[in-house]
Amino acid sequence: MEVEQWLHMANGDGENSYATNSRLQEKAMLETRPVLQGAVVELYRSLPDKSTMVVADLGCSSGPNTLLLVWEVIGTISDHNREEEQEQRPPAAAMELQFFLNDLPGNDFNLVFRSLDRLQELTADRRPQYYVAGMPGSFYTRLFPCRSVHLFHSSYSLMWTSKVRDELSRGAYLNEESIYIGKSTPPAVIKLYQEEYQKDLSLFLTLRFNELVRGGHMVLTFLGRKSKDMLLHGEASSMCELFDQVLFFCNVWQGLVEKEKLVSFNLPFYAPSMDEVKAVVEENNLFNVEHMSVFESSWDPQDYDTNDDVVLGCSSSGLNVARCIRAVAEPLIKKHFGEAILDDLFMVYASMISKHLKKAKAKYPIIIIYLKAKH
Amino acid sequence: MEVEQWLHMANGDGENSYATNSRLQEKAMLETRPVLQGAVVELYRSLPDKSTMVVADLGCSSGPNTLLLVWEVIGTISDHNREEEQEQRPPAAAMELQFFLNDLPGNDFNLVFRSLDRLQELTADRRPQYYVAGMPGSFYTRLFPCRSVHLFHSSYSLMWTSKVRDELSRGAYLNEESIYIGKSTPPAVIKLYQEEYQKDLSLFLTLRFNELVRGGHMVLTFLGRKSKDMLLHGEASSMCELFDQVLFFCNVWQGLVEKEKLVSFNLPFYAPSMDEVKAVVEENNLFNVEHMSVFESSWDPQDYDTNDDVVLGCSSSGLNVARCIRAVAEPLIKKHFGEAILDDLFMVYASMISKHLKKAKAKYPIIIIYLKAKH
Repeated sequence: MEVEQWLHMANGDGENSYATNSRLQEKAMLETRPVLQGAVVELYRSLPDKSTMVVADLGCSSGPNTLLLVWEVIGTISDHNREEEQEQRPPAAAMELQFFLNDLPGNDFNLVFRSLDRLQELTADRRPQYYVAGMPGSFYTRLFPCRSVHLFHSSYSLMWTSKVRDELSRGAYLNEESIYIGKSTPPAVIKLYQEEYQKDLSLFLTLRFNELVRGGHMVLTFLGRKSKDMLLHGEASSMCELFDQVLFFCNVWQGLVEKEKLVSFNLPFYAPSMDEVKAVVEENNLFNVEHMSVFESSWDPQDYDTNDDVVLGCSSSGLNVARCIRAVAEPLIKKHFGEAILDDLFMVYASMISKHLKKAKAKYPIIIIYLKAKH
Repeated sequence: MEVEQWLHMANGDGENSYATNSRLQEKAMLETRPVLQGAVVELYRSLPDKSTMVVADLGCSSGPNTLLLVWEVIGTISDHNREEEQEQRPPAAAMELQFFLNDLPGNDFNLVFRSLDRLQELTADRRPQYYVAGMPGSFYTRLFPCRSVHLFHSSYSLMWTSKVRDELSRGAYLNEESIYIGKSTPPAVIKLYQEEYQKDLSLFLTLRFNELVRGGHMVLTFLGRKSKDMLLHGEASSMCELFDQVLFFCNVWQGLVEKEKLVSFNLPFYAPSMDEVKAVVEENNLFNVEHMSVFESSWDPQDYDTNDDVVLGCSSSGLNVARCIRAVAEPLIKKHFGEAILDDLFMVYASMISKHLKKAKAKYPIIIIYLKAKH
């Protein structure tokens, strides 16, 4: 399976599109804000006069969140300038901003580009002047010239790996009852997932280091785990286990999914622990870790309170969560299992999630890491 | 009418799309090649070591030609490097290339981005390393940071003006029987067209001057006229006059087009003479003209021989030409007259063109201008 061709969010802005179902990603952006703002101000103050600050968002997708980063960076600099003015400190550099929104070539860039007008209107009274370009391509390849980017940002993307390991996709190892890491996944298969993740993250760091200016910054958020344990309630693995059950149900009870297709499907995905991430960054030795933390986000994007443990309306929550997952995974699943079963699959999935939430509220752990390139 | 929203080529890759009907633009690229290659080599040799050369294509559209510029530039540098090697001259700069493909936000960038894979395959053995980004926006606004681009290229785009003059679109002046400049167009209306063109070209030159590095280059090709005469056979005006006749026919004989809509439609377009272009460039005083010439291209994109005057198969030629015009103007015409009449309109247009070609072969004049920014 060519992951690059099928791993993109569901296009357009219809009911099942990513654009309509991406509140989770918006919430993550709010959590990252303080770290991001610190990075932007530090970089901005270090710029020479009349220069351009280049910011790239990796895995931008298409929808209301795609322009959130642009909005945040412009707002941060605009606010900073106003504060400086009020306190009559000498003005910082006269500069311009150039943004690159990156995602795989299958992403709906047309939708993104057609929404730029609205952003222009909203930022009409803000300075600095800015420009927004689209950059198609996998972030596991070079995307920018050497030393050309000041700040990389990536939200909800880096848990996707560049591929499913050959040993798994070709069937040398089997992960029969799971699409990711479940209770029945053999240790050797878990190791394949981990190795692919480590290799990909290390490659990612090296590529970005070459593209960053000296001392450039990266702010990355992605799905992770809270501990070494692979199978904690609420984490990515338990969401995948529910999907395993859906596929099993559709195979055994409804004959909708062929056994062979079920066995051969593995997600190009890995949710790492903080320790695993730290180990790769240290081994890679190109970046200093300025900040690293984890926060939790309810599975239900409409549930704003992650501190309580109450699930209000399990069935509507089930539907909300299933829609989110569909928006993210539809192209991948469609490619493997065909289009015809999508509606049934996600209807069963919604009801499984509802049942699961009745036991306890489920929350994803999200890792934030803020890195500075070593000199 | 917001020109920016509707002035884009017909999307997708179907029978009536721009992607399928853009041979004319490909032919123009071949004519421009020597000038373009000269510009690329000169810029390349002037670069410091380990730097990036930035090239932007303005009005890139979507289709087989969209990547022609990228292909040409990579090929030129690759060939140049090979020659230098063979003659054992010291190697030129180790550099990377960054391309920006620009068009209005309504352009089908998704189609362009999904065709980049194929280009990567075709250029796998070529150096230098290159990156292709998309840059949505009107080239009558700022698109790039100050001093960030080495070479601008634009093909078949600059005859489109930023808008139809208010005096015309609001009805203070009328151009009743024509969509552009025809036999019945009043001199005051011709003046409006000319003024808009001069204002837009001057704005374009100033914007690009600010975006170009010191001494940066521009290679521009666009529809023009051979002389002062506005109404020569074969030029843009006569193609528009045929369209006037189509609209008149559809109004009077078939009741398909309302009289009011017919009167209020004017193309945001102007085909200038060489003298007019030269006058604006000199008045603007930011660029030196390195080269300026005009060549002719048969209306029929399938007709490769522009030197003879034979029209083979007028009816198929009529169809070919009508398809080209439809690919370019469909969104504009659809917005003004509605979608329902498109097929009829262009069927009648094809037959009018066939009849016209029986009289004599028709050729567009295309102006090439190569400019260098003054220091």
